[in-house]
Amino acid sequence: MKGMTMMLERYGHGGDLWTAEEAFNRPKEQFLDYSSNMNPLGPPDVVKEILTASWQDIVKYPDPAVRELRLCLSRKYGIDPDSILVGNGAAELIDLIIRVVKPKRTGLARPSFSEYEEAVHKTGGQVTNIPLLPQHQFELQWQDVEAALPTADLFFLGHPNNPTGKLIPQSVLTNLLQSQRKLILDEAFMDFVPQESEHSQLKLASTSHDLIVIRSMTKFYSIPGIRLGFMVAHPDLIQQLRGQQVQWSVNYLAQRIGSKVLEDTTFEQSTREWLCVEKPWLIEQLTALGLEVAQSDVNFLLFSFPDSMGIQVKQAQQHMGHQGILIRDASLFEGLNERCCRVAIRLREDNERLLQALRNMISDLSRKRV
Amino acid sequence: MKGMTMMLERYGHGGDLWTAEEAFNRPKEQFLDYSSNMNPLGPPDVVKEILTASWQDIVKYPDPAVRELRLCLSRKYGIDPDSILVGNGAAELIDLIIRVVKPKRTGLARPSFSEYEEAVHKTGGQVTNIPLLPQHQFELQWQDVEAALPTADLFFLGHPNNPTGKLIPQSVLTNLLQSQRKLILDEAFMDFVPQESEHSQLKLASTSHDLIVIRSMTKFYSIPGIRLGFMVAHPDLIQQLRGQQVQWSVNYLAQRIGSKVLEDTTFEQSTREWLCVEKPWLIEQLTALGLEVAQSDVNFLLFSFPDSMGIQVKQAQQHMGHQGILIRDASLFEGLNERCCRVAIRLREDNERLLQALRNMISDLSRKRV
Repeated sequence: MKGMTMMLERYGHGGDLWTAEEAFNRPKEQFLDYSSNMNPLGPPDVVKEILTASWQDIVKYPDPAVRELRLCLSRKYGIDPDSILVGNGAAELIDLIIRVVKPKRTGLARPSFSEYEEAVHKTGGQVTNIPLLPQHQFELQWQDVEAALPTADLFFLGHPNNPTGKLIPQSVLTNLLQSQRKLILDEAFMDFVPQESEHSQLKLASTSHDLIVIRSMTKFYSIPGIRLGFMVAHPDLIQQLRGQQVQWSVNYLAQRIGSKVLEDTTFEQSTREWLCVEKPWLIEQLTALGLEVAQSDVNFLLFSFPDSMGIQVKQAQQHMGHQGILIRDASLFEGLNERCCRVAIRLREDNERLLQALRNMISDLSRKRV
Repeated sequence: MKGMTMMLERYGHGGDLWTAEEAFNRPKEQFLDYSSNMNPLGPPDVVKEILTASWQDIVKYPDPAVRELRLCLSRKYGIDPDSILVGNGAAELIDLIIRVVKPKRTGLARPSFSEYEEAVHKTGGQVTNIPLLPQHQFELQWQDVEAALPTADLFFLGHPNNPTGKLIPQSVLTNLLQSQRKLILDEAFMDFVPQESEHSQLKLASTSHDLIVIRSMTKFYSIPGIRLGFMVAHPDLIQQLRGQQVQWSVNYLAQRIGSKVLEDTTFEQSTREWLCVEKPWLIEQLTALGLEVAQSDVNFLLFSFPDSMGIQVKQAQQHMGHQGILIRDASLFEGLNERCCRVAIRLREDNERLLQALRNMISDLSRKRV
């Protein structure tokens, strides 16, 4: 590699096509993005219908109380609408809940989504690390949570966790719920989990005084550009949070789209069918390239370049970027090393392009080291 | 009036068609909304083009740094992009600036937009009232500001002010800027003011350590449903605010629309021409109905029912609502009484419908009193 390189995650995340355009001097439309984890089947058709037919409706304010969408969510998940708060993306809700709860010390799994820590630091809170280790397939271990209990007054955990893709084991969840600590679960990728309803803690959260669940609607429905997430918690807490939320925080189109995509069960079914086939196939193909791939409950994969390959993810990201493919530098997650990489799972044709580019990259970078 | 009445402003503002639908049992599409102050010429044509042609782009994350729109704003107003922070509506920026500045006591004009006070109360701050009086045509008087100087460490003022529609006099502004207090100006309706560039304090704010200006882009371009506002302040403060802002707060479509509408100078011109004719005409017509109408620098009018008419605005709002027209109960603004009402200025045909409905209402409600 020559000259300056630009960190693609300069704003903390993948999927930043604007930075990619600057870094690789290629129009942002021409990148194949494996660095953010969107459902490749999305957005559902109804999104097009809404944006092309109801565009005039943005001349009106959004419903400040998000009544229609909360009712739709209430029906879909069997939860009281008063237990639901809709947000301008899950990001707003992560920020809001931490500002209101103001934990002194938050237990965070390492690695995990950086917004939890960002939110904690914004309020001046401290963090207790809970390791997720490759020797346990990155699964959260109760003994590690237990070690954090004396210091943490709140736990903020991905369920499943990003970037590891793993659900929290049921036994660990059960213990956590009995620990008399507040627990926030980020279920941003829960809709991609087979048997979602067995694993999701949404219903429990709707009446609990200690459990809060945050959901994103933008990954499963591939609508990150419009921003949409929701939170389920006890109605008293929801009321308190609403009092602190910015007026008209959820735009009209997000509310409308959210209400409609929930009805599209065909889209849901197709997504499950695609992922059920594509995930094991891609894991197999990546493994065949010599990469060390972690098992995953969701639509993205964490892997690492083995020591013997001598490739660092930053080099790999540059090489792939010049081939028009964006991958996530997972070494930026605390707890992972410079050989760790995260990729989304996409449709077969794209996945084949990814594999070919990885093959080129491995061959090029290995040659240079000889 | 019989039975229960529902306050249209139950979420604190006008333009709530969902509540109107519940209150008057009429589909929300069928209301003529004079309770929120949107430009009736909007949205500009380019909004339709973007929503129908670029809808697929919401499959991508928004630019976290809002680079394109900040550049467009920078060019339009001759301001360094580093002095600009874009927000999820002006509402987000009002909330954010108060959370970061944390004023102990804020000077607020009465009446003024309720979100200033909301934001102050959320952070536990106090308020000092500065009266705006009908005998001064609701114009801010320096002696009243001066009386607040010993207690207030920050002033948060509408320029022009909502619901009074008046600019702050230049002499008062000059004194305020020399007062060594922080000053936040909400210029949400500044684009409707003839000779906007003479009155706007945007440029001054971009390098000042004490002055902050907040702009809405949703009133002038009639896009409240998509949420879009921006703030201009010293780059150091902007950087600090950005660190506290929620990630991807401004959705993709808002960013795209914002960048494009700024180029539409024809729309700008037509708006000025329409308002220049329609405002004096509507003031004249309302006055002819016996209403006491305040002069206005913008696209809405504050008026009151004279004592002799014996009509309260709550009755009027109910009566008009049943006729399918929403008006703003201005008695809900601290500093105004139960006879005060605010209406937007719309196109001639609608304004004639408004006038006819007002005529019916005045005739009905007066008769009932006899």
